Amino acid sequence: MSLNLSPIVRMPQVKVGREAFAPGERVVAEEMPIAMTYNGSTHAVMMASPADLEDFALGFSLSEGVIAAPDDLVSTEIIEHETGCEIRMWLSERRSASYQMRRRALAGPIGCGLCGVESLAEVERPLPSITSELQVSPEAIAGAMENLSDAQRLNREARAIHAAAFWRPEQGVVAIREDVGRHNALDKLAGALAARSEICSDGAVLLTSRVSVEMVQKTARMGAPLLIAISAPTALAIRAAEGCGITLLAVARGDSFEVFTHPQRVALTQP
Amino acid sequence: MSLNLSPIVRMPQVKVGREAFAPGERVVAEEMPIAMTYNGSTHAVMMASPADLEDFALGFSLSEGVIAAPDDLVSTEIIEHETGCEIRMWLSERRSASYQMRRRALAGPIGCGLCGVESLAEVERPLPSITSELQVSPEAIAGAMENLSDAQRLNREARAIHAAAFWRPEQGVVAIREDVGRHNALDKLAGALAARSEICSDGAVLLTSRVSVEMVQKTARMGAPLLIAISAPTALAIRAAEGCGITLLAVARGDSFEVFTHPQRVALTQP
Repeated sequence: MSLNLSPIVRMPQVKVGREAFAPGERVVAEEMPIAMTYNGSTHAVMMASPADLEDFALGFSLSEGVIAAPDDLVSTEIIEHETGCEIRMWLSERRSASYQMRRRALAGPIGCGLCGVESLAEVERPLPSITSELQVSPEAIAGAMENLSDAQRLNREARAIHAAAFWRPEQGVVAIREDVGRHNALDKLAGALAARSEICSDGAVLLTSRVSVEMVQKTARMGAPLLIAISAPTALAIRAAEGCGITLLAVARGDSFEVFTHPQRVALTQP
Repeated sequence: MSLNLSPIVRMPQVKVGREAFAPGERVVAEEMPIAMTYNGSTHAVMMASPADLEDFALGFSLSEGVIAAPDDLVSTEIIEHETGCEIRMWLSERRSASYQMRRRALAGPIGCGLCGVESLAEVERPLPSITSELQVSPEAIAGAMENLSDAQRLNREARAIHAAAFWRPEQGVVAIREDVGRHNALDKLAGALAARSEICSDGAVLLTSRVSVEMVQKTARMGAPLLIAISAPTALAIRAAEGCGITLLAVARGDSFEVFTHPQRVALTQP
């Protein structure tokens, strides 16, 4: 059986306005359950756009801490099932041992539950400290967000699709990934960059979305010193960026933006 | 220890425009890890707005299928930990047995993983069939979305906060819940309505967000025949709404909207 692995599809609709209705079509985002399995056992099922699944495999594995480096994944296979896709990954022997220990530690009395305090502690995995001398001007930042908008190929057709991009001052947008989920878009970006062994300390992650704490955590694990988003951050995201040394810029629209943490990386020059 | 359980907080920022920068403050959404525990074991940790947590407990338990009715929860306690909140729930004796069986069924060779096909099948829980004679005019729908906007108290202050509301043609918005996560907002709404034993077959769920398949699944479990959203649906959401009998309206802005499924509930009158 073969699934439609296009990330966008045409669906019939009826457009209704104040004084008319018109049957037509709309291009919408496809969405598919993607089972992430390691060594034959499911880690998680994510609802995602069926695109760039190899990048998703690598980026998700890195950001979840299942692997520490790309070569911890010894094989990655995309398998289409009737109800969705499976990303079937096999871990290196060394990594399998630590993964199995982590899974055992998660196994509680009923099945796989930690108690409340333990599971809350599990959420707070330590983040790397980000140090980078990068400095960017407000003009460059406005330009970066324009680049981002231009590069959103899927969103231009279907709308309501998020994007995450990596941008360098002298190169512009070097990679972009789009997905119905903003977390997935960022994981796919992280995977695409890791597969090319890109160093992220000299550029910025650009997001079309809001910034929740997980977006900061993923950016920190990528090693990027700047996170620039179109929409607003949460308070917890601001605290996390402050704590790990990321410059968080948000509400970046047109010529203006807001700096929430570590403003030394924005070359502010008063007129 | 006591956490700040306000869903919005003030944080310092620096606003940067083309020719000026101005230190100030912005009201942003708080975000907190919330551990959902049943009978002492964690089911999931959700990042959510710290508000309406009793509604969240009930709505999440219903939409996840952990409970079938409100009285399956024999106690719900909100406990503040240093790193987040725990919603500590105890199930009725009858429900505990079926929950324990479900958890055991999920336990695989390494810890708690199903294989890929099994976990994809687990995502596809059957939805109830929605039948309802409700009919709504385009004018009433435009009015409902205006009501929704007026009722978003938190979003007016902090922006970037989602809302889910329940609306009846003759009553307007009867309940609204806001959260940094759109899934959480809808679960909280479902919980608030279930706690009041509200029947949902005579009204519509209103969403400020996009419509992914999980939003349709939650709406179906609430028994609501209409789902109206500001942003676009995914293809999978459209298929799910078609399958379970929900009228899906989206891209509802100003006087216009698009009907994707079961248009018989929209009283279309050509001029």
